[in-house]
Parts: sequence; structure tokens; C-alpha cells
Amino acid sequence: MEFCTEKIVELDKEFRINLINSITGAKPANLIATRSKNGKDNVAIFSSVVHLGSNPAMIGFVMRPQIDKNTDTYQNILETKSFTINHITEDIYIEAHKTSIKTDISEFELFDLHKEERAFKAPFVKGSPVQIGLNLLKTIDLPNGCIFIIGSVEYIYTEDEIINDEGKLNLEKGSSVALSGLDGYYGLKFLKSIKHIKSFKTIDD
Amino acid sequence: MEFCTEKIVELDKEFRINLINSITGAKPANLIATRSKNGKDNVAIFSSVVHLGSNPAMIGFVMRPQIDKNTDTYQNILETKSFTINHITEDIYIEAHKTSIKTDISEFELFDLHKEERAFKAPFVKGSPVQIGLNLLKTIDLPNGCIFIIGSVEYIYTEDEIINDEGKLNLEKGSSVALSGLDGYYGLKFLKSIKHIKSFKTIDD
Repeated sequence: MEFCTEKIVELDKEFRINLINSITGAKPANLIATRSKNGKDNVAIFSSVVHLGSNPAMIGFVMRPQIDKNTDTYQNILETKSFTINHITEDIYIEAHKTSIKTDISEFELFDLHKEERAFKAPFVKGSPVQIGLNLLKTIDLPNGCIFIIGSVEYIYTEDEIINDEGKLNLEKGSSVALSGLDGYYGLKFLKSIKHIKSFKTIDD
Repeated sequence: MEFCTEKIVELDKEFRINLINSITGAKPANLIATRSKNGKDNVAIFSSVVHLGSNPAMIGFVMRPQIDKNTDTYQNILETKSFTINHITEDIYIEAHKTSIKTDISEFELFDLHKEERAFKAPFVKGSPVQIGLNLLKTIDLPNGCIFIIGSVEYIYTEDEIINDEGKLNLEKGSSVALSGLDGYYGLKFLKSIKHIKSFKTIDD
């Protein structure tokens, strides 16, 4: 199937949302957890987390435009300058998906997701094999009203079984899932680790 | 294993690069193809493509800092204002990975990757089940010197077999792969599509 600019604009709204959300490929499935200044915890699913740099360690994610009222995640990040990113696994993806609803009740109370306290200002998600604590570094307004949130990595927890002595994580061992579109979940099966190629001038060197 | 800020800074460089590149979870594996104003084609692997919005359809990706000289991908995008994003599959990921080297020769000549011409200014990658043509919309400098490139989606091709009548793509049928860190490749096994939850006030409504 082919879609040109004019055809994309004319697509049925739901079809276009599904298609455009799918075309970038496998997306990371993460729960972002925050704590309000009054101590109320929030956790919400995001598929837009992206690595920005290793030194200093920096991660970004995209938030939808904030219409009328800030979402709890955004408001808490602005208030406390901190948030956590937690991998979603095959064990919790069905509960994790439910956090995409709008609610005033803490998702930790509403759903079968449990918080884990560590030496960090925001809560983590219990059972997540990779848990990252971040401080807010910068927010950037994107052309379509979305907000790009950039955080500095202040804390990392990984399960012992999934990290090797080179610092590489095995996402299959951790049962981390990937997401396609708004609601398509995938398990990961490890294929191969290819030696990283630094640089050379021609293939024959 | 736990790593706090001080420990992250003191990590062995290679270990830190591997760890921080892995912690965000499954990353999409895409080839970005461009054509220089002189007609020389370039194709390079990127794992930082992110969905930004569906109406207008907008996609972003992160480029490493441009030191001394622009990379071919960046230079071509600045010159021609266009680029294509192509899913990497289980069939081509080993060749696709090789495009991370620095070379002055077109990767289409150097490696077993073939270009496909469509009604678009930049080339696509043959055999890729999802091919997207984009025009440059904006570049944003990030705090660490990386550049966030934002493109508007002008053209989409998908294989018939992987798209359903709701516009959802099945990434397992297309054999699209995910990437962890710099060099860990994963196949995708479809788990479930969960009905998208719009919004409700409490779970009991």
C-alpha cells in the first residue's frame, strides 16, 4: 500500500493515528513514575523514550500537547524536577497499558502495579528489570505542540541476570516488551550481538 | 546492580556507553537514506527514530554531534530537505549494521543493500516492509550537542501483508527488528493488541 501526502491527510482519523503511530517500528514500552509535591504518586505508559547521550548520560521522551490542564506526569516533573523510567515486561504489560487512561486516582492504587522505593525522589515500578531515576534537565516545545522532556540519568538499577560484564543488557532475559502503534505488544527474541564497527575508510582496509 | 550518579561517571567508558545505550529498552532499527545535491546516495543505521504526531504526521530522530565535518546524512538533509526512513528486517540487519562505519563511498555500493526509487526525492531501501519519505521541518540543538531532526511525513509505503484495515502494522509479519544498545538485535514476536483505552474517571465507571 502507498500513501502520498494528500492521501495521508484524507485518511480516516483512527486509521491515520494507527498507521502513523506504527510506521517508526518497534517502540520501547516504559512506565514513567512521578511523585507530586504533595506526595501523590503517578505512573503512566510512554513509548517515546529515546537515548540522547552517554556522557553525560541523558534520555529524552515526548509528551503529548498539554491542553487546558497539565497531565499529572508533566505537572509532577515540573514541580519536583524528577521522574523514573521503568521497563514494561511480559508480566505487567496488560496492567501497564491501563495507565493510559485519565484518572485522578494514583494508578498504583487503581491497577495491579506496585511501587518500589529506592534512594531517589520519585517512585519506581516493582518487578521492572531496568529502573532509571532522572532529574529534569530541559523541556523543548516541538512544532506540533508536543513537549520534548530531557532528563539527566542519576540512578540506574538493573537485575543482575540481564547485564553482562560489558554493560550490555539482554532484553529477552528481562522480558522487556516493545510496542507498535498505540496497542500492539511484542516480546523480544535475541538474535545476535554484532561487534560494534568504529570506522574505516573502505571495506577492504 | 545499582549505579548512582557518581558511579555512572566513574564507569569504564565502553561499559557506560553500552549500559546507557541499553537502558531505554527496545529501540527501532531503521535505515535513513538520503541523496546529496550531486546525486550521491547515502544510507545509515539509526535507532533514535521517534513518533511525534499523527496530524500533521511528524517523526523525529536524534543525530550525534557533528564534529569538524557534517556526516553525509546530516549534510544531505540540509541540502535537499528530504530523507527516507526504512525498517530494518531480520534479512538485512547484518548488512544494515555495517552502515555505522564512516566511509566516503555510497553504502549502497559498499554493502549488500539495494536502493528502490519511488516518487520521492530521496532513495528507499529495497525489501524494507515499511518505507517513509519525509521533508525536513526543523532541526533543534540539544543540550549535549546532539541534533533533533524533525520531518513531516510525505509518503508511506507498507507491504500489503503487514497492514490491517484499521491501519495497524504487524511488525512480526514484516520481520522488523529491534535494537538494544549499539549492537544487540532482536526479533519481534506478537503478543497481543489491547483495545485502546480513551479515558474514564474511575475504573468502576
